[in-house]
Amino acid sequence: MAQIARLHCFGIIVLCVLLYPAMTTAQQPTLNLMPLPAAAQPGTGSLAVNSSFSIVFTGYTEPRLDRVGERFLRQLSRQTALPLSLKPSKSSKATLVIETDHASKEIQEVGEDESYILDISTASARLRASTPLGTIHGLQTFLQLVEVSPDGFAAPAVTIQDKPRFPWRGLMIDSARHFIPLDVIRRNIDGMEAVKMNVFHWHLSENQGFRAESKKFPKLHEQGSDSLYYTQDEIRELIAYARDRGIRVVPEFDMPGHSTAWFVGHPELASGKGPYEIERRWGIFDPAMDPTNERVYKFLDEFIGEMARIFPDHYFHIGGDEVNGKEWDANPKIQTFKKAHDLKNNEALQAYFSGRVQKLVTKHGKTVIGWDEVLVEGVPKDIVIQSWRGQASLAKAAKQGYRGILSNGYYLDLGWPAARHYAVDPMSGDAADLSAEEKQRILGGESCMWAEYVNPENIDSRIWPRNAAIAERLWSPQEVRDPASMYARLDFVSARLEWLGLAHRTVTRHMLQRLAGQSSPAEFAALRTLADVIEPVKDYTRERTAPAPPTSATPMNRVVDAVPLESDAGRRFGELVDQFIASACHDPAAEARLRAQLAAWRDNDAILQPLAQRSFLVKEVAANSQDLSTLGTVGLSALEAIAKGQPAPDSWKTQQLALIEQLKKPKAQLFLIPAPSVQKLIEAIAGGACSNPKP
Amino acid sequence: MAQIARLHCFGIIVLCVLLYPAMTTAQQPTLNLMPLPAAAQPGTGSLAVNSSFSIVFTGYTEPRLDRVGERFLRQLSRQTALPLSLKPSKSSKATLVIETDHASKEIQEVGEDESYILDISTASARLRASTPLGTIHGLQTFLQLVEVSPDGFAAPAVTIQDKPRFPWRGLMIDSARHFIPLDVIRRNIDGMEAVKMNVFHWHLSENQGFRAESKKFPKLHEQGSDSLYYTQDEIRELIAYARDRGIRVVPEFDMPGHSTAWFVGHPELASGKGPYEIERRWGIFDPAMDPTNERVYKFLDEFIGEMARIFPDHYFHIGGDEVNGKEWDANPKIQTFKKAHDLKNNEALQAYFSGRVQKLVTKHGKTVIGWDEVLVEGVPKDIVIQSWRGQASLAKAAKQGYRGILSNGYYLDLGWPAARHYAVDPMSGDAADLSAEEKQRILGGESCMWAEYVNPENIDSRIWPRNAAIAERLWSPQEVRDPASMYARLDFVSARLEWLGLAHRTVTRHMLQRLAGQSSPAEFAALRTLADVIEPVKDYTRERTAPAPPTSATPMNRVVDAVPLESDAGRRFGELVDQFIASACHDPAAEARLRAQLAAWRDNDAILQPLAQRSFLVKEVAANSQDLSTLGTVGLSALEAIAKGQPAPDSWKTQQLALIEQLKKPKAQLFLIPAPSVQKLIEAIAGGACSNPKP
Repeated sequence: MAQIARLHCFGIIVLCVLLYPAMTTAQQPTLNLMPLPAAAQPGTGSLAVNSSFSIVFTGYTEPRLDRVGERFLRQLSRQTALPLSLKPSKSSKATLVIETDHASKEIQEVGEDESYILDISTASARLRASTPLGTIHGLQTFLQLVEVSPDGFAAPAVTIQDKPRFPWRGLMIDSARHFIPLDVIRRNIDGMEAVKMNVFHWHLSENQGFRAESKKFPKLHEQGSDSLYYTQDEIRELIAYARDRGIRVVPEFDMPGHSTAWFVGHPELASGKGPYEIERRWGIFDPAMDPTNERVYKFLDEFIGEMARIFPDHYFHIGGDEVNGKEWDANPKIQTFKKAHDLKNNEALQAYFSGRVQKLVTKHGKTVIGWDEVLVEGVPKDIVIQSWRGQASLAKAAKQGYRGILSNGYYLDLGWPAARHYAVDPMSGDAADLSAEEKQRILGGESCMWAEYVNPENIDSRIWPRNAAIAERLWSPQEVRDPASMYARLDFVSARLEWLGLAHRTVTRHMLQRLAGQSSPAEFAALRTLADVIEPVKDYTRERTAPAPPTSATPMNRVVDAVPLESDAGRRFGELVDQFIASACHDPAAEARLRAQLAAWRDNDAILQPLAQRSFLVKEVAANSQDLSTLGTVGLSALEAIAKGQPAPDSWKTQQLALIEQLKKPKAQLFLIPAPSVQKLIEAIAGGACSNPKP
Repeated sequence: MAQIARLHCFGIIVLCVLLYPAMTTAQQPTLNLMPLPAAAQPGTGSLAVNSSFSIVFTGYTEPRLDRVGERFLRQLSRQTALPLSLKPSKSSKATLVIETDHASKEIQEVGEDESYILDISTASARLRASTPLGTIHGLQTFLQLVEVSPDGFAAPAVTIQDKPRFPWRGLMIDSARHFIPLDVIRRNIDGMEAVKMNVFHWHLSENQGFRAESKKFPKLHEQGSDSLYYTQDEIRELIAYARDRGIRVVPEFDMPGHSTAWFVGHPELASGKGPYEIERRWGIFDPAMDPTNERVYKFLDEFIGEMARIFPDHYFHIGGDEVNGKEWDANPKIQTFKKAHDLKNNEALQAYFSGRVQKLVTKHGKTVIGWDEVLVEGVPKDIVIQSWRGQASLAKAAKQGYRGILSNGYYLDLGWPAARHYAVDPMSGDAADLSAEEKQRILGGESCMWAEYVNPENIDSRIWPRNAAIAERLWSPQEVRDPASMYARLDFVSARLEWLGLAHRTVTRHMLQRLAGQSSPAEFAALRTLADVIEPVKDYTRERTAPAPPTSATPMNRVVDAVPLESDAGRRFGELVDQFIASACHDPAAEARLRAQLAAWRDNDAILQPLAQRSFLVKEVAANSQDLSTLGTVGLSALEAIAKGQPAPDSWKTQQLALIEQLKKPKAQLFLIPAPSVQKLIEAIAGGACSNPKP
């Protein structure tokens, strides 16, 4: 494997020389890969992929690789519908020769060699990797490269030298607030594999549920989960499933806060009097473990010991976020303890708790990972900080000698567009000024899927496709950051992810059908037209603006639950407006498309309203529909103003912009996404950008 | 249960008095039920279905009913997204009180009481049934009645007295030609339950595969299945799964023909010399069991005995169809045997074989069912004939004292529109003239999904939604036969079936995405526009017109594999043309819609052609796309001819109709469905139907 190692040494040079020509030269087709590889050199022609396609394993083998090979062939067969033999060939003349050098660690570690080299020529293909981890990634790259062509399915001739930028590329799923069944978890792990993520962070306990079976303390899951929990056997199977895909599983048991569900069966752990019930609301709540109670540490010692034996990963997440301290303040015994131990405030008390828990975790052979809050003075240097508060805290930790990963900017539940997540770089902001040694401590990042407003039905559509953009941020070179290229490839990878059973694209139609009930094709098309251009409110406003206080029992059947968090149609309309304005409003094709789109929006409401009268769930968006109609009218009036060939009067501008301001306000917790683009059009016209003489 | 029995006596009267007013009065909403019930009396208002919805079982209970109840609640929760408690209530104040009188037979029998009465008022609902079979059907009716309303989810107040017209309402799935995995079988059984079918006929052996594990003769599945078979445990589980849904499972082992796969491991059963290989082509093949060989009967005795213990149903299907006799003719020993036993022809030889096999089946406690061919002189009267050849043979059998079921007219693989299947009635044709006693012998029918051109991916879209129309034919009163009402409800039930996991609607988009590869939204929309109005060739022409001889290894990734067998858009366009002509071409709204549709078709090809240049699978339909464009142009010229207000000249008509004739020819094995409607338009214009003065 000396050759691979050597190539990696030249990784950065290869990148500059090869990748950018390949990606930017118009004559060369862009590789449809996400994440983009560290380096790629396109060849000439392509390798036919037909029913005789075969693979062979050479070099190091293990049972996991056999399964990897069969899964690869099954997946290739699914995406092409070619009937392929699912058994590896014994012949060195197989279409794809896979050469793995040596085993990876029995328990996957941070920073193992995940690199691979993939050579595809018109005659055959060769995949070389140091370890099965690289093999797994390389096969996913191959799958993405296989496309329909004029002559059949084919993969382009190319040489790819690839390795990840960061060793920790994770997705956190909160399966505590809403329980997420294992089949849904599994298909999301398949999605992670497809985009080369390598850590599944499993948020298993919360105020709203305790989701892991404990044999030592069965009251935890029996009383804290509404019978919705994972058995230990299921957890072990899931870990094996993830390992087969090159993915570590890091469990999180959040403490001392976010822990009401523990106290339903074990009120003696809490700082308050109890009794406790499973929390049904969302938010930050008072219950917290009692840091002054030795029984708590005895309990946690046994519990962490039990879980440490089930979860083989070297890291153990203890949460640590958002303790409001109210139960501590209200408990005289705890106040006395603070004084006796010179703990000046609750932060210090939590630090004391974290320190004790950290020792227990270490005792059981694991390293602690925790949210920002666990980083307080005196915490040992081997813990890992997961920054949800911001890049500054991550950089600060690195400066102090702590390793960390970034999650701030990667919260999928906040409803940001993919491009916004994509622009967040673990090495930017305060981290940009770190020394090389300090930078080494930034291990990567994790996207987070908090589950107040996701359930098994719509979770795929909240994670995908946006998570693929974050995966690219964490794998690909820092210089790969063009949002247009990202969106083009995201659309492609999103379609590919459907072959894994992910329902992110189909679920919207299913949910819209539920809320429409019986509708004519025209009515349903009108509902889709509206749904295509509205997005749920962003950040943490969903709870604040809810029609009724949301709980875990609130039905998730509203339009806000159904539509994607990012509107493709809205983005494309914005691009069209930009293109039109850039032409000084002279591009007749763009104008025609704008006019057709705006007219369709204007007329959509008349078709949709009868359906709104029949369904309470459609009625909720009747005002949004009227807004879309108004937006169409406003946009058309802007196009008419251009047609007049004179600068638009100020009064017109004022009037139109006032209308737009109204349309920009969310209704039914939904934003009308094209409104700012129409505003841009009006401003361009009023500002004279459309008054240039025609060319 | 005396009350139920009494109501059933008045079934026919109730039907006439109640059903038709309910279904035809415009003021009353049509019940969205498929199959329509025997009788329904609408009430006033509706029953709210919200998160507090509950059920209680009274009267007879059994573990199956507990599972039925939980499944019902789970399904109701899925289709509404209401979080419901999945446990039945103990309170008599539950929203839906379910009263079952007594057990059904341990092994479900033909003709058991499947009736139920469902009363829904604004305050509560009550379901009464003699047996769990009626309970199962009644709950499916309730699920179909729950709809979104202006005030929430609700079921309309109604009283339904329901029972099936025929006791045998089946779906046959051929899982031999293409193996169909159990999860796909299960979701189709869920679909059968939803439309009240009660027989799953499992076609388990064919020339192309032997799909049931035999422990007595393991070479059958080991050598005859490419390792694609159902284990005995899996079969038992599937039978239990079906029983929970009120569905019998009738196994079919086709013999003496259609049996090549048996002979791979057991050539000694065949009439030829062998050796034999699993057949990969489609068609009728020579291999057949040797009816003159006593070892064959000894083998079948043991084999049927083994299968009879696994499949509890009272009926055992022995196939019997399509023996071409060539192996018999070529075997001197068989010729000698025929002479010695005075068997004049191969039909007589097959009758001898059937008679022997029938005795074996009887010995193992089962009744024979077989295809038409098993009905020959002297066959005992207790066998059941499954008529695939036509209604005449069914009527003939009934006259001779044999019971029978109709499958002719219900072959789903022939690609007929739902309305054509729907018009086929087991009691029409020759059967209409039977005596009442003879009619009793017609037990019902079965739709058949032969699997030359279906695989696990597209089978749902070949069975559904059309199978629901056949299910209605077999359940609902004979007078229920309005295709317009059927199509309206079919669209509704088709959407509902998606909640069961059936992929009949989503698979088309997935498959189109595969064959499109990377495409712009506009290109993909253009592909969908084309796909929406083309249908695969019908009847048995698919093989004859194939670009290459099809085999079981032929990839099923073409447009002909992807598009539904019936085009909704094509049907709707036809209705619009009819409406326009009926208005003497004066309906301006219809004209505007026609014009828009025709213009879109005309312009579609220009958008699609670039994609056709990139994908060999899209390229295959490039000519269809050009045809659609031509059709749009022709249709628009017809509308222009009307606008001129003068009778169109004969030369125009001749020219246009000649064009249409070209467009009606299938290309790439696909018909352009709206072509005959445009032809109708031209003929109406040329014939003066559009020349009436405007009103």
